[in-house]
Amino acid sequence: MQSVIDLLQSHTSIRKFTSQPIDEALLFDLLRAGQGAATSSFLQGTSVIRVRNAETRKAIAEVAGGQRYIETAAEFLVFCADLKRPANCCAQHDVEFEGDYTEQFIIATVDVALMAQSMVAAAESAGLGICYIGAIRNDPQTVTDLLQIPKHVYPVFGMCLGYPDQQPEVKPRLPLEVVLKDEVYDDSKDAPIIAKYDKEIGEYYGTRTGGGHGTPWTAQIAGLLSGKSRPHMREFLARQGFTFK
Amino acid sequence: MQSVIDLLQSHTSIRKFTSQPIDEALLFDLLRAGQGAATSSFLQGTSVIRVRNAETRKAIAEVAGGQRYIETAAEFLVFCADLKRPANCCAQHDVEFEGDYTEQFIIATVDVALMAQSMVAAAESAGLGICYIGAIRNDPQTVTDLLQIPKHVYPVFGMCLGYPDQQPEVKPRLPLEVVLKDEVYDDSKDAPIIAKYDKEIGEYYGTRTGGGHGTPWTAQIAGLLSGKSRPHMREFLARQGFTFK
Repeated sequence: MQSVIDLLQSHTSIRKFTSQPIDEALLFDLLRAGQGAATSSFLQGTSVIRVRNAETRKAIAEVAGGQRYIETAAEFLVFCADLKRPANCCAQHDVEFEGDYTEQFIIATVDVALMAQSMVAAAESAGLGICYIGAIRNDPQTVTDLLQIPKHVYPVFGMCLGYPDQQPEVKPRLPLEVVLKDEVYDDSKDAPIIAKYDKEIGEYYGTRTGGGHGTPWTAQIAGLLSGKSRPHMREFLARQGFTFK
Repeated sequence: MQSVIDLLQSHTSIRKFTSQPIDEALLFDLLRAGQGAATSSFLQGTSVIRVRNAETRKAIAEVAGGQRYIETAAEFLVFCADLKRPANCCAQHDVEFEGDYTEQFIIATVDVALMAQSMVAAAESAGLGICYIGAIRNDPQTVTDLLQIPKHVYPVFGMCLGYPDQQPEVKPRLPLEVVLKDEVYDDSKDAPIIAKYDKEIGEYYGTRTGGGHGTPWTAQIAGLLSGKSRPHMREFLARQGFTFK
């Protein structure tokens, strides 16, 4: 199945969808493909909220800085890390729930991402396009209120799903030789490789925005990591019961 | 491509591999399929350490509670959340690195899981089997020392990769109706569905262990969430520069 490898290598986020709905049987099949993914200690720590209501979609699009495709995509799903179900298991078996360890935050968050990405591979193989919406974390409390998300659950990201009405160019990734380390972590030889990549990305952005050179990758990432990044997350998560013990 | 959906729905962790090596070109192709996955704000926050040295593998297998397939799998990879590369970008562009927010921990951890799972979909489509090794977090400091993992990087999980020498039965997942919520989070009707699932899983474990009934899912999860789960993670991550600001 070289085609699957090609398909995954050529992933692009889709932000413009046709009006074609997704057959519900297919949607459920894709979700089950997601559920098939590995899950830490069989926790199955994911819940997915399917948002159909137009007002709710609009409100979430606002949270996400006005990403309108949240409103127009055939489906919009919110992937949640769910330790409430495990908490219910503890109550049922009369043991104390201790779900507030950093480790369990990692487990549940990784579970969510594995399920989502397995679903994405299935969706793209079926000709669908997707866009992850991390920007629901701009204001996770509003999303939590809108979707009545209880304690021990938090919304990790959203996902737009639909039939693509665009075909964006694939964004070149970092050369594998930078990402893949041999035996030990060593980045002492990476600088010139990344410098070359910087030019490539600058040209990619330049092409997309109609000529000239765009922002190099290192500048983009420096911008991203030098600001206060959603500093409300810690407190929000604590309110949801994730206290990073 | 119904076959991809079927493939992902029928994932099982492989813990017994043939001695067949993985062609290096294929391995790199799979890693590039992983790199193709979405990445938050184009961070590309993953580094993968390929561990070939037998002594290192053995030491990691010890950390992971004696999972011997870490030693015998054709490939063993350690997936790391990497904010050192972004920190280097900040240094290069002369801005202060502020990578210690909870948000950035989430972004990097999710990036790692998306890349890994995209690679897994590619690998399974190529006839390979995998097993995630979350148990490297039993003693992440030892793994970090062994692999010379620097500050701003942490090992999220390992992955065994090889040609399967077993065909485990697919473990039934929670019914989708429990995992998928409509419009809002509501688990008020889940109890009887989970009770039925509990029986199913009990029978599944029973069959695998040669008859009788095994542990129901709720009991397994209650056990998992009622103990101190790797309580060292918080401090370990703080040492690596992830302080959950």
